Amino acid sequence: MTVDEQLAYLTKGCVDVVRTTELRTKLERSASTGTPLVVKVGFDPTAPDLHLGHTVLIRKMKHFQDLGHRVIFVIGDFTGMIGDPSSRSKTRPPLSVEEIAANAETYKAQVFTILDREKTIVDFNARWLSPLGAEGLIRLAARYNVAQMLERRDFKQRYETGKPIAVHEFLYPLAQAYDSVFLRADVELGGTDQLFNLNVGRDIMPSYGLEAQIVMTTPLLEGLDGVEKMSKSLGNYVGVTEPPGEMFGKLMSISDELMWRYYLLLTDWTTAAIDALRAQVAAGAVHPKQAKIDLAVEIVSGLVSAEAARRAAEAFAARFERGELAVDALPDIEITVPDVTIGLAKLVAEAGLASSTSEASRKIQQGGVRVDRERITDIKHRISVEKGSLVLEVGRRAAHVRLKPASG
Amino acid sequence: MTVDEQLAYLTKGCVDVVRTTELRTKLERSASTGTPLVVKVGFDPTAPDLHLGHTVLIRKMKHFQDLGHRVIFVIGDFTGMIGDPSSRSKTRPPLSVEEIAANAETYKAQVFTILDREKTIVDFNARWLSPLGAEGLIRLAARYNVAQMLERRDFKQRYETGKPIAVHEFLYPLAQAYDSVFLRADVELGGTDQLFNLNVGRDIMPSYGLEAQIVMTTPLLEGLDGVEKMSKSLGNYVGVTEPPGEMFGKLMSISDELMWRYYLLLTDWTTAAIDALRAQVAAGAVHPKQAKIDLAVEIVSGLVSAEAARRAAEAFAARFERGELAVDALPDIEITVPDVTIGLAKLVAEAGLASSTSEASRKIQQGGVRVDRERITDIKHRISVEKGSLVLEVGRRAAHVRLKPASG
Repeated sequence: MTVDEQLAYLTKGCVDVVRTTELRTKLERSASTGTPLVVKVGFDPTAPDLHLGHTVLIRKMKHFQDLGHRVIFVIGDFTGMIGDPSSRSKTRPPLSVEEIAANAETYKAQVFTILDREKTIVDFNARWLSPLGAEGLIRLAARYNVAQMLERRDFKQRYETGKPIAVHEFLYPLAQAYDSVFLRADVELGGTDQLFNLNVGRDIMPSYGLEAQIVMTTPLLEGLDGVEKMSKSLGNYVGVTEPPGEMFGKLMSISDELMWRYYLLLTDWTTAAIDALRAQVAAGAVHPKQAKIDLAVEIVSGLVSAEAARRAAEAFAARFERGELAVDALPDIEITVPDVTIGLAKLVAEAGLASSTSEASRKIQQGGVRVDRERITDIKHRISVEKGSLVLEVGRRAAHVRLKPASG
Repeated sequence: MTVDEQLAYLTKGCVDVVRTTELRTKLERSASTGTPLVVKVGFDPTAPDLHLGHTVLIRKMKHFQDLGHRVIFVIGDFTGMIGDPSSRSKTRPPLSVEEIAANAETYKAQVFTILDREKTIVDFNARWLSPLGAEGLIRLAARYNVAQMLERRDFKQRYETGKPIAVHEFLYPLAQAYDSVFLRADVELGGTDQLFNLNVGRDIMPSYGLEAQIVMTTPLLEGLDGVEKMSKSLGNYVGVTEPPGEMFGKLMSISDELMWRYYLLLTDWTTAAIDALRAQVAAGAVHPKQAKIDLAVEIVSGLVSAEAARRAAEAFAARFERGELAVDALPDIEITVPDVTIGLAKLVAEAGLASSTSEASRKIQQGGVRVDRERITDIKHRISVEKGSLVLEVGRRAAHVRLKPASG
């Protein structure tokens, strides 16, 4: 690749690149000296359960690996071991060393479906932040100004509206910035909401005699609805450890417009290749459904395997093109039924095929729900626990559901 | 003493007492349980060279000792070892452990003229602040808000006028506050410019399950001119290690009005006793000069000895009442003369008897300067280094000056 092509590949889909000219200089120097760039990405040490939204950033790390650079996956155990010291939130208790190690293993299992295990360094920032001591943290804090800190959007808003900002919240961006100093990062990647924090690293590095790192941010991925950002709580997500058939069905449910966004952010395709495919679809040379199948196959291949993707595609085709349902390829879900029967709407919601019971009711009413291939439109329909198991279809998604009595 | 009398004695001369009602409760509890109060005062570890302005605070510590309480003299070696990490100022380089220990000894030599050596605990805050580590400092910083910090007058002004505040400056008041937590202080004393910092300790103590400390501040002492605050650089000071005759002469030079202020802040006299003396002076029963001599004797007795004070008073009387000059009682000053002669004005300034050469010239012109008892009014007057030594009088102050050739 020429430097221009490398730049295009690396910045594809990014929201911010601070700055492209400096990135070019670093890439040229790296090529001429044969020294890979150090690319740093920080992750929260809380229990990871990744969905495709998270993979946008991880895939950007992969793009640097593809070009031979050195990617460091930094787990923020330093702050994780502190928890939320303001005690305002019960949701961030301190994590033990064992919990953090376990979470790191879960991260690895998930991210190594995308990243090259051999080329990825996993490190923990307590290794260099703890030894700073109280004295070192004060020296670090001397390198940044209160006014600069209050420029961060959420700090500014909270300050102006009288919502409290605890003093230690000013120390976290500085701790993260020190990660870049210690690792001598050439590039730091993060979500677009991390722009300020990443720039703090950029700002303080020169005071340590280091070249300022390049800051690159990736966007928040839209969920399957194409409107809200992808999130567990909104139910519009695809988890990276979901069964291949489930992933496939979810991906086939997205709009044609969203498909192009996913091509950009969830594959390694270059912008030029995506534009070419898009032109073919626009000209009628490729059916949009085929482009969507190709996308789903590519994503499932990357996260699971080419074989799993092929089987998911086949099962999908059998069901929707030939009316068959390959039960073997469906995700297997066990639901505990507290009573002798369970409402169908509740069952659909509990199986994760709708985000709530009321959404499930709406889908039943609209004729989108089938039980063992039979369409049910009565929202009061109930299913006996004695039925044992059933195949549940909701739109393009389907699952094999096993019912378990609560007292059993 | 009744509790009311104790309160009057302890709060005499204070600018702020936060809060008197709580101090009363603590004094009553201390009396009933027989447990002395813990009274904490922090001092900078930079080279101390105390003048009477500093003794106002030290004397307030003594008042607590007089009533049987436990005074802890905290030397801020934690921040002293860090220096000024913002590097904006060259004046605060980090101090070594040896320098801090040496400064502590100098402090002790000076403050034990006022405090009871047996009843005073000298401690160093790095003992508890260093072990906090980076993690502990973050937990500490979580206990205070940015908005509260920005209420401190100098922070507020700098923030509003766009002058930088480094983030670590927010950590120093918290470190000082933690001293109070660690020592379980009942009372913290400080100069009036420390009010905000002392209140931070008061604010965070309840979050550690401790009763909030009482905060008491002492005023800045006016210098000999009665206008500016006493300071080395303004030349309007009395150093605690100056020769007794020099101290005495300086104290006799103050105005009658300032005398009452010094009675309040530089002696252990109760307000009632001072008021009584003041009434006698007003009624003509006591001459103001006698009241001033009594004050000077009291201060010099406290800082040096009763014998030294008696001799200084005698020498002063001999000179100004009987026209004699007791050369033996004069401070002995050595001045290096770089040339074969030195201008009288320059000599007066170098001997510390005027704050500058131009002030010295003015005093010569006004007829206030004598050399070996002879009045000199020529501002161009020069003195030969070969003269060896001379008695220099400037107003009510006098010194024995020895001239030393520069190359000798």
